[in-house]
Amino acid sequence: MKRTNYAGLIDEKYLGQTVVLQGWVQKRRDLGALIFVDLRDREGLVQLTFSEAINADALTVADQIRTEFVIEATGVVVARDENAINAQMRSGKIEVQVQQVEILSTAKTTPFYIEDDINVSDELRLKYRYLDLRRPEMQRNLRIRSKVTAATHEFLDANGFIDIETPYLAKSTPEGARDYLVPSRVNPGSFYALPQSPQLFKQLLMGAGFDRYYQVARAFRDEDLRGDRQPEFTQLDLETSFMSQSEIIALVNEWVAAIMKKTVDFDLNIAEIPTLDWAESMARFGTDKPDMRFGMELIDLSSLLAQSEFGVFSKAIANGGQVKAIVVPGAAEHYSRKDIDKMAQYIERFGAKGLAWLKITADGITGPIAKFLTAESDALLAATEAKEGDLVLFAADKPAVVAATLDALRRMTAKAQGLIDESKWQFAWIVNWPLFEYQPDEDRWISAHHPFTMPNEEDLPLMDTTEGAHQAHAQSYDLVLNGYELGSGSIRIHRMDIQQKMLAALGFTPEAAEEAFGFLLEGMTYGFPPMGGIALGLDRLAMLLAGVDNIREVIAFPKNSKGSEPMTDAPLPVAKAQLDELGLVAPIYAETSTPNMAEE
Amino acid sequence: MKRTNYAGLIDEKYLGQTVVLQGWVQKRRDLGALIFVDLRDREGLVQLTFSEAINADALTVADQIRTEFVIEATGVVVARDENAINAQMRSGKIEVQVQQVEILSTAKTTPFYIEDDINVSDELRLKYRYLDLRRPEMQRNLRIRSKVTAATHEFLDANGFIDIETPYLAKSTPEGARDYLVPSRVNPGSFYALPQSPQLFKQLLMGAGFDRYYQVARAFRDEDLRGDRQPEFTQLDLETSFMSQSEIIALVNEWVAAIMKKTVDFDLNIAEIPTLDWAESMARFGTDKPDMRFGMELIDLSSLLAQSEFGVFSKAIANGGQVKAIVVPGAAEHYSRKDIDKMAQYIERFGAKGLAWLKITADGITGPIAKFLTAESDALLAATEAKEGDLVLFAADKPAVVAATLDALRRMTAKAQGLIDESKWQFAWIVNWPLFEYQPDEDRWISAHHPFTMPNEEDLPLMDTTEGAHQAHAQSYDLVLNGYELGSGSIRIHRMDIQQKMLAALGFTPEAAEEAFGFLLEGMTYGFPPMGGIALGLDRLAMLLAGVDNIREVIAFPKNSKGSEPMTDAPLPVAKAQLDELGLVAPIYAETSTPNMAEE
Repeated sequence: MKRTNYAGLIDEKYLGQTVVLQGWVQKRRDLGALIFVDLRDREGLVQLTFSEAINADALTVADQIRTEFVIEATGVVVARDENAINAQMRSGKIEVQVQQVEILSTAKTTPFYIEDDINVSDELRLKYRYLDLRRPEMQRNLRIRSKVTAATHEFLDANGFIDIETPYLAKSTPEGARDYLVPSRVNPGSFYALPQSPQLFKQLLMGAGFDRYYQVARAFRDEDLRGDRQPEFTQLDLETSFMSQSEIIALVNEWVAAIMKKTVDFDLNIAEIPTLDWAESMARFGTDKPDMRFGMELIDLSSLLAQSEFGVFSKAIANGGQVKAIVVPGAAEHYSRKDIDKMAQYIERFGAKGLAWLKITADGITGPIAKFLTAESDALLAATEAKEGDLVLFAADKPAVVAATLDALRRMTAKAQGLIDESKWQFAWIVNWPLFEYQPDEDRWISAHHPFTMPNEEDLPLMDTTEGAHQAHAQSYDLVLNGYELGSGSIRIHRMDIQQKMLAALGFTPEAAEEAFGFLLEGMTYGFPPMGGIALGLDRLAMLLAGVDNIREVIAFPKNSKGSEPMTDAPLPVAKAQLDELGLVAPIYAETSTPNMAEE
Repeated sequence: MKRTNYAGLIDEKYLGQTVVLQGWVQKRRDLGALIFVDLRDREGLVQLTFSEAINADALTVADQIRTEFVIEATGVVVARDENAINAQMRSGKIEVQVQQVEILSTAKTTPFYIEDDINVSDELRLKYRYLDLRRPEMQRNLRIRSKVTAATHEFLDANGFIDIETPYLAKSTPEGARDYLVPSRVNPGSFYALPQSPQLFKQLLMGAGFDRYYQVARAFRDEDLRGDRQPEFTQLDLETSFMSQSEIIALVNEWVAAIMKKTVDFDLNIAEIPTLDWAESMARFGTDKPDMRFGMELIDLSSLLAQSEFGVFSKAIANGGQVKAIVVPGAAEHYSRKDIDKMAQYIERFGAKGLAWLKITADGITGPIAKFLTAESDALLAATEAKEGDLVLFAADKPAVVAATLDALRRMTAKAQGLIDESKWQFAWIVNWPLFEYQPDEDRWISAHHPFTMPNEEDLPLMDTTEGAHQAHAQSYDLVLNGYELGSGSIRIHRMDIQQKMLAALGFTPEAAEEAFGFLLEGMTYGFPPMGGIALGLDRLAMLLAGVDNIREVIAFPKNSKGSEPMTDAPLPVAKAQLDELGLVAPIYAETSTPNMAEE
C-alpha cells in the first residue's frame, strides 16, 4: 500500500479522509475492547484507535502489537472527544479509526526508550545508534544539519559556484596535524594520506581557472580526540579568484544569512555583524573567538596600577606584563571565598599564579587586596565602571596568560550569572591576524592559519627575512558565532616568490619545500590568479543551530572518544592476508618475527 | 578592482559600457602600434585591443604580456569592424578597447597549449592538471558534473530526502571488492576500512526512521584499475522506507529527468523508458546492460539448427548450448575475411572457439559454412530477416559464451557501421535479476548484487536451502543508459531470518555472519521497516552526459592506471616515524629486521 500521509502531519484538515500510514509504535494502551496506539514516523505522532465497532480483525492484530513494531494502518480521520484533545500535538485534535492493520516488522524491547532526554550512557546510545536516532531530538538535529547543507548548495549554485570533488586519497604533507595514512597495495611501501582539508586542491582549481569552487568536503585529522573533535569532520569549503577580503566576507555573510533562514528561520541582519581586528579582539575579550552576546569586556589597568602597592600587579607590569580586569555585574554576593578559590585553581591551567579580586560595596572596594589599592580605589571604580554588588576579577601576568585567564573567567561567570542571551545569534569577523604565532612548547614559529596565507600588502617587505616574516600580519578572516570559531579564511599566496619566503620562514629548506609543495610552487609559475576563500565547519555550525553542546549530536555515526564506533566496533584487526597484500606487518601478527620492533 | 563581467559573456548588448575583466591571455597578436589580446575566463574569450590612440600606457604594458599571463583590463566595449566579426564567438561582434591594464601574474611557456583536442600523453595532462583543466573541454566536463550534483540536491531536497553523511572511517567487511585500510594509531593493530558504499549505513538510517535518505558519497575499492575504474568514485546514493520497486523506479525516473534537463537541456520522456526482465535482456542483447539505441538483437536459431549438417552448430546444441546470430545490416561488403578473422580472434576472450558467418547476396547465403546450411537456408533467411548485403554472425556455445560473444560483436559492428544514433539518450530498466550468480573461476555462488538484496516474495520459500536460494530471483533493478550501467538498486532484506538465510547461502557460518554483520542482524530485531534504494554512479553519468569516453575526463584530479596521481606523486613513502606511531613495519623500512616476511 502506498502511504498517503506522514502520521505527524495529520490534523483536522483531514477529517473524514481515509489515510494509509506506516511507522513505529510509540505507545500502546490496551483497554480491552479498545486499544490506542501512538504511531510515530519522522514527522511526529498520531493516535490510532482500534475497537470491535471499527473493525474486529484490526483489533485482533492490534492485540499483538508492541512498542517499536513497524505497522501499516488504514483508517479514517475523526475528531477526538473534547476531553481527549492534546494541544501539544499537531494531530492532537484527531485520531485515526483503524479498519485495517498489518504488522510489517516486530521488535524486541529496546535497550532504552525512544524519547527525548533519556538518561543512558553515550556508549549505549552509540552502540544502538539506529535506535538513538529514532528519538525526536536526534531526528531534528540531523535534519537541521541537512538543511545547512541544502541551503549551501542552493545559495552557492545560484551564485555561480561550481561543486568540484577533490581526492580523498591524497599526498601526505608536513605542517598541520597528523595524517591518516592509507597503504597502497599497487605501490607497496607507499601511502596515500586522507586530506586534512582540500586546501591545496582548491588553490590548484583556481589556478585552473574555475573562478568559483565549492565543496561539502570530508576532512580527516588523526589528533587526540576532545569533546568537539572527531577523526573525520565536514567542511563547507569554497574558493574564489580575483575577489578581495571584503568582497569574500560580504559573500559569506549572504550565504550564512541563507543558512540561518532555512535552518532556524532567523533573519540575519548582516549590517550588524561586527568586524574586529585580531588585536582588538584579544584586547577586549582575551580571545580570537569572542562571545559577543554579552559585555564584560577586559579592562586594561596596567597604567593605573603600574606603581601599585600590591606587588603582584606592579611586578607583573615591571616585567613587561599587564594587569587587566573584568567586572561581573551583581556577582559579589554569589561568589564565596571558596568559589573564588576554586576559580583560582581552575585558571592555573592557563599559567595564572593566583586570582586577585574585589567586591564592590556601598563603602567602596572590599576583599583581601583592597587594602593595597586605597590610593587607586576611586580611579579603579571609574575605569571599571564597577557598581555596588559587582565582582571584579584581575589577571596580572604576561599578555597571553592574562588573555586566556580572563577569557575563561568571563565566559564562566557570565554563564553562571545568567548574563548570556541564549536566544541570540551573535556573529563576528576577526581580521588582520598575525601571519605566524610562536609555539613556546616547541620553541618554534608556526603559521597562525596555514602556510598558504597571504601577508598584508604593506608587510610584504618584511617577508625578506625570517624574523621580519614572523612579525607580519595576514589577509585572513575568521567567522565567529557565539564564541565558537565557525570558519577560517584567507587570501592565498599566488606568487612563487612569496610562497618560498613563507616556507623558509617556517623553517623549510628549499629542498624540503620542493619535496612537500613542489607541484604548487611550479603551478604558480604558470599564471595563478589572486585567490581567497574560506571553510566553515559544518559539524560545529549544525551543533550551534541545533542548540546542542557536542558535535556527536549532529553526526549520524560518530566515533567515541577512543576513535571507535561502538555499533560496528571499527576499527578492528583485519585478516593477516590483507596486510600481506599491502606488504605490512602489524605487531599483533608479528610477535615472533619482529620481536624487537619497538627498539629498532 | 571588482570584475564587472565574465569575458566570455560580453556581447553587443554591452556596447559603449566600461567593463573590468580579469583572466588569462589566450593569444596575443602584436602589430606594433596595435596589439590584440584574446582574454580567457571560465565563460569564454573576448578580444582586447590596445593602441596608442586608446591608451599609450596600456599599450606599453600590453607589450610585456605573454600567453597565460593573468591580467586585469578596464576598457570600453565597441563594435568590431565588419570584416573582423567572428561568428563563432559570443563576443565575436565586439572588442574591448583597453584604457588600463595590470599584470596580476606572469607565466612561463606551458608544456602544452591551453586549447581543445591537444595531442599529448595522459600522464603529462595529469602532471599539469591545473593547466589541463584550463582547457575549454575540461571546464565544460566538470561543469556538467557539477550540474548533475546540483540537480540531484535540488530534486531530492524538494522531494523530502534528507542529506545524511555516513562515515568514511568504517569497518572492513567481507564480500565485495578489496577494502582500502586505514591503520589506527590509538588502537594499534586495528584498521578502519574506507567504505565501498554507504550500503549498511543507509539501511541503518532506514532502521532509524529517516524514511528518505540521500548522499553524494565517495566510495573506495582497491581493485585493479581499468579505463573506467578509479580507486575512489562517487555515488548518488538514496534509500527510502515503505516504497515498492515500482514506486522507487518512478521516483528515480523523475530524478534522472531533472538531471537531463539541467545538464543537457533534454526533455526525457519517462513513459518511453523500457523495462526488461533480466532474462529478456540476456536473450535479446546478450547482456544485462543493453545498448538499445539500435536493433541488431540476438536471434535464437537453436531449434532451427539443432539437426544442422554443420557440426559446430548441432554439437553445441546437443551439449546443452545454443546457436544464436546477429544480422549486421549492409555490412557484407565492409568485412573482408581478414576482418572477420580478427573478430574471431577478439572473441576468444569470451570463450568463443571460432566465428561462423554468412554474407547475404542476391543468390542467397555465401561464405565458408554456406554449403552446410543449404537445407536451412530459406528458414534461416526468414528467421533472421537478413537482406541482401547483410552480414550474419553466429555464436554456438554455452549460453554465457554465446551472450558475451554476440553482445561484443553487436556493439562493435554497429559502431563500425555507424548504426548508433549518438544523439540519443536511451535509458532502460533491467529488473527481476537472479539473486545469485555462479562464479566458475572460484567455483562458488556470489550475490548478483549484494547480500542485502530482497528475494522476490514468491521465492522466499526457496531460501530455506542453499541450493534453493541459488535459484531465487531478486527485487533488484538496474538503470542502464546507452549500454552503460548507471545505477543498481534493490529492495533490501529487513528481516533477520531472511538475512541469515541469505548469508548462509553465501557460505557464511552463523559465527562468521555474526562477526561480519552482527550489528545489522541485531538491528533487524528492533523493528526495521521495509526499505529499498539505489545508487547511481556519478562519474559514469557525468562521462556520458559530457560525451567523453573515460571517467578521468570528468574527475578533477584522477589517479592514473597505476593508482598514482602524477601531479603530487601520491602515494609516496612516508617517514618511518609515522609508521612507528601506527605500530606498522613496511618492507621498505624493514629489510634487515624482517628479511623473511614474504615466506612466513
